[in-house]
Amino acid sequence: MAKLADLLSADEAQARIFENFERLEAEMVPLREARARILASSVSSNLSVPPFANSSMDGFALVSGDTARASKNNPITLPVTTHIAAGSAGEARISRGTCARIMTGAPLPAGADAVVPFEEVIELDQGIEVVAPVHAGACVRPAGQDVRKGQELLAQGTELAASQLALLASTGNAEVLVVRRPHVTILSTGDELISPGLPLERGQIYNSNSPMLTAAVEEAGGRAQSLQSAEDSVSGLTVALRSAATSDLIVTSGGASVGDHDHMKDVVATHGEVGFWRVRVRPGKPLLFGKVFGKSIIGLPGNPTSAMVTFELFVRPVLRIMLGAAPFRPVIQAIVEEKIDNRGGRRTFARVRLSYRDGAFRARLAGAQDSAMIHPLAAADGLLVMPEDRDEMGAGEVGSVQVWRLPPG
Amino acid sequence: MAKLADLLSADEAQARIFENFERLEAEMVPLREARARILASSVSSNLSVPPFANSSMDGFALVSGDTARASKNNPITLPVTTHIAAGSAGEARISRGTCARIMTGAPLPAGADAVVPFEEVIELDQGIEVVAPVHAGACVRPAGQDVRKGQELLAQGTELAASQLALLASTGNAEVLVVRRPHVTILSTGDELISPGLPLERGQIYNSNSPMLTAAVEEAGGRAQSLQSAEDSVSGLTVALRSAATSDLIVTSGGASVGDHDHMKDVVATHGEVGFWRVRVRPGKPLLFGKVFGKSIIGLPGNPTSAMVTFELFVRPVLRIMLGAAPFRPVIQAIVEEKIDNRGGRRTFARVRLSYRDGAFRARLAGAQDSAMIHPLAAADGLLVMPEDRDEMGAGEVGSVQVWRLPPG
Repeated sequence: MAKLADLLSADEAQARIFENFERLEAEMVPLREARARILASSVSSNLSVPPFANSSMDGFALVSGDTARASKNNPITLPVTTHIAAGSAGEARISRGTCARIMTGAPLPAGADAVVPFEEVIELDQGIEVVAPVHAGACVRPAGQDVRKGQELLAQGTELAASQLALLASTGNAEVLVVRRPHVTILSTGDELISPGLPLERGQIYNSNSPMLTAAVEEAGGRAQSLQSAEDSVSGLTVALRSAATSDLIVTSGGASVGDHDHMKDVVATHGEVGFWRVRVRPGKPLLFGKVFGKSIIGLPGNPTSAMVTFELFVRPVLRIMLGAAPFRPVIQAIVEEKIDNRGGRRTFARVRLSYRDGAFRARLAGAQDSAMIHPLAAADGLLVMPEDRDEMGAGEVGSVQVWRLPPG
Repeated sequence: MAKLADLLSADEAQARIFENFERLEAEMVPLREARARILASSVSSNLSVPPFANSSMDGFALVSGDTARASKNNPITLPVTTHIAAGSAGEARISRGTCARIMTGAPLPAGADAVVPFEEVIELDQGIEVVAPVHAGACVRPAGQDVRKGQELLAQGTELAASQLALLASTGNAEVLVVRRPHVTILSTGDELISPGLPLERGQIYNSNSPMLTAAVEEAGGRAQSLQSAEDSVSGLTVALRSAATSDLIVTSGGASVGDHDHMKDVVATHGEVGFWRVRVRPGKPLLFGKVFGKSIIGLPGNPTSAMVTFELFVRPVLRIMLGAAPFRPVIQAIVEEKIDNRGGRRTFARVRLSYRDGAFRARLAGAQDSAMIHPLAAADGLLVMPEDRDEMGAGEVGSVQVWRLPPG
């Protein structure tokens, strides 16, 4: 049996895997389909926003100097010489001693340098009375206030959500260059697995790894295709892996241990090259990495919780690297609310629930930490990282948690 | 001009709007399409998981009592009478003094009560030597260890991510009952607006609210349809709103202020009922809520940042209520790193960037806080909530932040 010291550390295994991947090529997509995509390059603006000085209020555009001496007792009367709607072409002009009725967003007329809102003047039949001085620039948004032409808007690697799409739209972009989504083929092995929905025969269990890994790939920004679980034979696996080699990455679960039917290593070795490691993490010790039929393959353990944790450690960052995005989950510090064991000198990723109270996150085990159990995994908000050199963490200690979801506010 | 005290508070406005909405009906979807959907009812298990006692290791199933006196000097020899693969039907049986070769996940044979891993025995031609006592239950996962038949798996309102889908699959669910996604029609008004991609004429700006609100609806779990921005006329708005009334909710931006071309209130009043409020929030004071052509309508301000903030306050929670999900964003406490003003006695939602250092979140303004500017909005990680009764927050003070995204780890 391999000694712990002979196992790879989690950091070494990550480094060995990650160096094989780089950002994928870019593709242009319409803004309407760009949500949650990753910018392939930084975007600069081709125009100033707003493109022209405009009014920030419904009111009257005027020459501020005309109002310098206005007061309630000494109102200044200005005739209204023109009306300017939002969307008008901006050819209007006023001269001193006059004003223009102007709507929010409408171009400031030539000659004017300020706007006074409706609510602050007295409207007369053909004009207005201004009852207080209006400062130059009041209620005017200057051209380029928001964005200057040539200014960088968004950095490469930015994930596009609502407000980033608004910024791209406001600067006239109808489409945007994003990184192609990595295509992942998922292959769960195990003759005991059948698909949910079919009747369960004796000795069988439902395949939960395929739907889990498919969803996890999509959450990370990839596209996933799940192959029917292959027959646990050399020929069955060979056929499956050959067909999977059209994708950017092959992710398998199970079939890579020491059992009589664990042929994954042999098939990968025959049609590529295999690195098979025991990694000093819990859960998830055995990990296969290599190339098969010219494509990268990451072989995860078959136990669902081990598969999920090793997906988080080794597959999700690879997908993020291929997307040119930040590779790792947000990490926060949490107060551990109960004693958590770490037998065995491996880095342990405990499935925990998070709460937030008195300005601090708190973590509790989400259930039993058996790697074959899914129920606690489904209750977890993230992974508490327990260092290799700690036998336990006591209640009240502070640990790092890789966050999947925050408790609602 | 309305006095501040006459304005609705944010809480009052939320209460008045939210009481009009309830959870939508449920629909059955295949697991493959259920990611990010919301459970319509709690799900209990129809079976135990694992359904049968099975081996957690590749090794040999045996009767623990046979090994009680085993030691290196006194190995116990057991003949291997059968081989049990994962997926086999579980008809195998062993008798005392024998053992079965068994793979991970394979059903424990009748008669056996423990498994010893390959690595811990000496394999002979037809049998094994056990060199230490094996405890009853060793390397055996009992039936129902993970989930008992009838146990509640997931609560109503749960958002389905990878590990929740794994749990549903492991208990045989090929489909799941989720809440129908609310259908929202987006209508941006303003004759100055044109679509990104078209040439910008004088006096025009690009429509950023439609793509922004469309993405925001989808992020919240809804489906969005964006109408071409309607002509700023009574007839144009009437046609647009009538066609929008096939959806669950109509969300408009602009056209609901005091300008000459702001006909929204009139059209809604003519074809439904209108509540028009000034709400004591910044940005985003004016807010329209009502029914038009029988459907609920929420009218947001036209300035993009005002539209986004009021979407977060009033529209997103409505969508989450319709989904039966937690209505509000996660809220964390952050140390404010610079002085932030709150002129005017309104509850202010400052657009801030978050960082995380020394176990604490820190917030800085994401840029100028002008409600017409999109650039700072696109740099923000969330909204710092400044109470109505605070004129400013000083550097070092702690405030609540509604989180859009966490800084990466």
